[in-house]
Amino acid sequence: MSTPDPMSGVIPPVCTPLSPDYEVDTSSLIRLVEHLLDGGVDGLFVLGSSSEAAFLSDRHRRTVLDTVIGHVAGQVPVLAGVIDMTAPRVVDHVATALDAGADAIVATAPFYTRTHPAEIAVHFRTIATRAGIPVYAYDLPVSVHTKLGADLLLELAAEGVLAGLKDSSGDDGGLRKVILGRRDRDLSRFAVLTGSELTVDSALWMGADGVVPGLGNVDPHGYVRLYKAARAGDWEAARREQERLFRLFDLVNAGGPRMGRGSSALGAFKAALHLRGIIAYPTMALPQIALDADEIAVVGKHLADAALI
Amino acid sequence: MSTPDPMSGVIPPVCTPLSPDYEVDTSSLIRLVEHLLDGGVDGLFVLGSSSEAAFLSDRHRRTVLDTVIGHVAGQVPVLAGVIDMTAPRVVDHVATALDAGADAIVATAPFYTRTHPAEIAVHFRTIATRAGIPVYAYDLPVSVHTKLGADLLLELAAEGVLAGLKDSSGDDGGLRKVILGRRDRDLSRFAVLTGSELTVDSALWMGADGVVPGLGNVDPHGYVRLYKAARAGDWEAARREQERLFRLFDLVNAGGPRMGRGSSALGAFKAALHLRGIIAYPTMALPQIALDADEIAVVGKHLADAALI
Amino acid sequence: MSTPDPMSGVIPPVCTPLSPDYEVDTSSLIRLVEHLLDGGVDGLFVLGSSSEAAFLSDRHRRTVLDTVIGHVAGQVPVLAGVIDMTAPRVVDHVATALDAGADAIVATAPFYTRTHPAEIAVHFRTIATRAGIPVYAYDLPVSVHTKLGADLLLELAAEGVLAGLKDSSGDDGGLRKVILGRRDRDLSRFAVLTGSELTVDSALWMGADGVVPGLGNVDPHGYVRLYKAARAGDWEAARREQERLFRLFDLVNAGGPRMGRGSSALGAFKAALHLRGIIAYPTMALPQIALDADEIAVVGKHLADAALI
Amino acid sequence: MSTPDPMSGVIPPVCTPLSPDYEVDTSSLIRLVEHLLDGGVDGLFVLGSSSEAAFLSDRHRRTVLDTVIGHVAGQVPVLAGVIDMTAPRVVDHVATALDAGADAIVATAPFYTRTHPAEIAVHFRTIATRAGIPVYAYDLPVSVHTKLGADLLLELAAEGVLAGLKDSSGDDGGLRKVILGRRDRDLSRFAVLTGSELTVDSALWMGADGVVPGLGNVDPHGYVRLYKAARAGDWEAARREQERLFRLFDLVNAGGPRMGRGSSALGAFKAALHLRGIIAYPTMALPQIALDADEIAVVGKHLADAALI
Repeated sequence: MSTPDPMSGVIPPVCTPLSPDYEVDTSSLIRLVEHLLDGGVDGLFVLGSSSEAAFLSDRHRRTVLDTVIGHVAGQVPVLAGVIDMTAPRVVDHVATALDAGADAIVATAPFYTRTHPAEIAVHFRTIATRAGIPVYAYDLPVSVHTKLGADLLLELAAEGVLAGLKDSSGDDGGLRKVILGRRDRDLSRFAVLTGSELTVDSALWMGADGVVPGLGNVDPHGYVRLYKAARAGDWEAARREQERLFRLFDLVNAGGPRMGRGSSALGAFKAALHLRGIIAYPTMALPQIALDADEIAVVGKHLADAALI
Repeated sequence: MSTPDPMSGVIPPVCTPLSPDYEVDTSSLIRLVEHLLDGGVDGLFVLGSSSEAAFLSDRHRRTVLDTVIGHVAGQVPVLAGVIDMTAPRVVDHVATALDAGADAIVATAPFYTRTHPAEIAVHFRTIATRAGIPVYAYDLPVSVHTKLGADLLLELAAEGVLAGLKDSSGDDGGLRKVILGRRDRDLSRFAVLTGSELTVDSALWMGADGVVPGLGNVDPHGYVRLYKAARAGDWEAARREQERLFRLFDLVNAGGPRMGRGSSALGAFKAALHLRGIIAYPTMALPQIALDADEIAVVGKHLADAALI
Repeated sequence: MSTPDPMSGVIPPVCTPLSPDYEVDTSSLIRLVEHLLDGGVDGLFVLGSSSEAAFLSDRHRRTVLDTVIGHVAGQVPVLAGVIDMTAPRVVDHVATALDAGADAIVATAPFYTRTHPAEIAVHFRTIATRAGIPVYAYDLPVSVHTKLGADLLLELAAEGVLAGLKDSSGDDGGLRKVILGRRDRDLSRFAVLTGSELTVDSALWMGADGVVPGLGNVDPHGYVRLYKAARAGDWEAARREQERLFRLFDLVNAGGPRMGRGSSALGAFKAALHLRGIIAYPTMALPQIALDADEIAVVGKHLADAALI
Repeated sequence: MSTPDPMSGVIPPVCTPLSPDYEVDTSSLIRLVEHLLDGGVDGLFVLGSSSEAAFLSDRHRRTVLDTVIGHVAGQVPVLAGVIDMTAPRVVDHVATALDAGADAIVATAPFYTRTHPAEIAVHFRTIATRAGIPVYAYDLPVSVHTKLGADLLLELAAEGVLAGLKDSSGDDGGLRKVILGRRDRDLSRFAVLTGSELTVDSALWMGADGVVPGLGNVDPHGYVRLYKAARAGDWEAARREQERLFRLFDLVNAGGPRMGRGSSALGAFKAALHLRGIIAYPTMALPQIALDADEIAVVGKHLADAALI
């Protein structure tokens, strides 16, 4: 299938369930996909940051692609992350994604290396030439240590290099610049998706097309309600749903200062999925620190407050 | 062969010559290895940042390993970089390096993901368990966005996880803390290598064992003279040589503000190797920006001033 | 007069007009105040970043306070910035502001020194003890290099130390955390003001009480229309006004890479006020770089497009 | 008196003793000055970061200037920090320093405001025009968030704007660039002083003229021995002394994670001076956190190990 023009709606970044021996738990992954489809999502994003892509070997990544794309079987588009340092490495992941049947790919700017806008442009052009399917830029300065500027994004959109943006920068002024810029430049097929799961109502209000919410793993139904309310023009309902999800999001702090913020957040998502009976184990990829029983109990408390268990 | 305890001397990070179609130019790579061995180096570090490892596919990386290790044939130890985001991905590179016959490996802290000292420790322990050969920590905050602390490094040294440090942080106070700490904790087999090619005399003066100089590709003889002078106690000669190399290093600025600092520096090294007749092409991996004729002429001027062409 | 509980509406950070010899141009300042009051603003914030407070001597600061407070004569509240490194220096500015008759003060976290949340709390407590009038926290990480956390802000609000927040962090998720937190903790008198002038509609949508827009110097009537539309529940009109102001804001890029972003933005505001006939000179405080004629023409073009000249 | 050309030797940044009610404890300050002069220092630097200048009101700053300059009475040069955000505020501190009789001033780049090299140049030129006495640039990126580049410094030196550099950036490659650049450009009167108190031997080895060591408050005799050994060509003795001081420096970690690094380091210096009987109280300026009894005991342990109590 192909992705809509532009891609829109709720497209959760799918967590990657692991077995206790750190293999991809494909049964749990299929249950998670079912859970998300049951929630009414519009697409799935695999192998992104919330999928622990940085912690998955190429073999694990391939297993994820095959499992999800095989099970989804065209019900919704599957976007595949191709997270790696620079274009020559990314294009190998693109080849795998194409072989597995992904509908679109999602790539960051170069990282590890210091970079320059002229180099970022060559990077995306190189990737798009190889891909032949829609390419979404993934703006995630907390990981990539570069902010993608609106002018560069729109130039690459106009060239046909980029099909859209997943903006996880938290810079809503920058997001609006892209939204207004595509309107001015008549680039309506360029998708603008926010990854800021706590301000989805306002992003949609500004004109974004959809959202890629990590918390959508835990409560996809909530994000779909939020999105549908916004699309129906019932902004009050959208805000109430967003505020409810905002409070639920506090579970990401379950792991305290003894671990990184990534371990705490992804560990909490996985603990929640485990407590909800969707995945078999809350195992985190190494070298992340696992939540302990007390920390998992905090996650459970949040779920109970939200009537999710 | 195994690496000395501790590894010492001049161990250049070997540039990766490319052909115009972006394949590894193995003939040029062999000439470059010969050039470095002729310079009297004590080891070779392949697949580090100066090797454009971030820009090399797994296939290219394997070619580099096979070419260099095959040609060196045990004359000096070959250290292999295994640059990737986290342990589960790094260990696949370790397996390749072991298969190719590397004498030691060099790994950074996790990157792309936000991390925590407890996670960095698990990361290195996981890698070392798999490696079975010496593991050197590569401290490069400009790329990894984490500074490895002296206490963590020495703890991992005491555990037998780390065989040494390649310090490219530019933090000479921190370097000294490691040097004094290993003395206090009787960890004399833990190697301390500096990657700060402009302050080698002072690093050796403080007690470092060796240097991994990117500029050593261009002028290995100079770094070997510097090292030998220091070891012989002729610190004045070492300083003079360092000051000469400092001035030569200015060639890294040949590319101006139209490109990233990495493109400029590595492009200048490759241009210099090309002008010196060692490699066939100054090709840079994509998406880096290539130096133009004027910029290459600036590099040539520096080489002429240094009587290297 | 006292500030409302909570402070709300449009409270522009008043630019500081200077004469060609770098003195405060009080005639122009009075005309600017008139221009803002004519726009229907709800308060004035003097001696903030947009006022070039960092570039004003204590004598200049006093002149600004006396001129504005004297002219406003209680028509609207005047909030006074007390920008300095730490509490012992800030309290001297507080004394001046009190003497001049300011209605409230606005203080950042400590800067220049590296700091810690426990120290930030002592800092604000020390200031509040001295002030005896409402104290607003000014969250401006781009200048202060610290982000004020929601938990700390709400704790200080509950203690009665802080009367409100001016959030110029650009972190709308964090802004929402404060807004929801004050609701949960029944701190409705704690004002939440955004300094992000490009997302005012969404900040108000989330529950913010008002805005402190630098661009409000140039077009106060626009921001007042935006605010009133939002308060009247006409969010579509608010968004249209915000989008218009967003486009106008592009004038801040008039100064190119030859100067800092601050010089460019504040220089453009002053050029616009000069072109609109409100201030006599577009002079910038030293060591900022002044816009040249071509750059000022770019500002004029933006004003013409917006029918402001 | 005037400062030598170039300024050289050991020039400690003088701590500011405070009474329990946060006034400058002038008796203690005089004893501290005596202690430093007894150590054989070559100059004194007051109102720098180690003096808690960021925490001192203008009145307190003046008291420090008058006390120290009055007591020193020309025995050694007194350099006065004029720490403030930008030139228009700095020049007021310059006027005070001139009035008090300072021999030279020390100024940072602009901070709080985002800045640009062209603006930094105007900043220093503006200050120098007013000063009429030697101006030293203070490179302290951890506070100022800007790194002063070698080219800019040498250009300002050539113009006669700057008399020297106090480099607290920790970037020894950059320090060397300044040292070699002044040699090439025949700027031998431009002083290069390092503020990196843990690598003084190597800075002197590279060609620096002196050191401004915070730890020199605690052990001035040690730094003077280090300096004299280096000047006498006995580098081994210099290194031994530096290594001893390095270990002593560990006292700065006495305050744990419950406070900022500044509170911990300056609190430890003051605790040490108090334990050594030089200052009457270890009081820290607000809002810094004071060391508690256990933490002070850690400082005492370090002093005992170093035979300083």
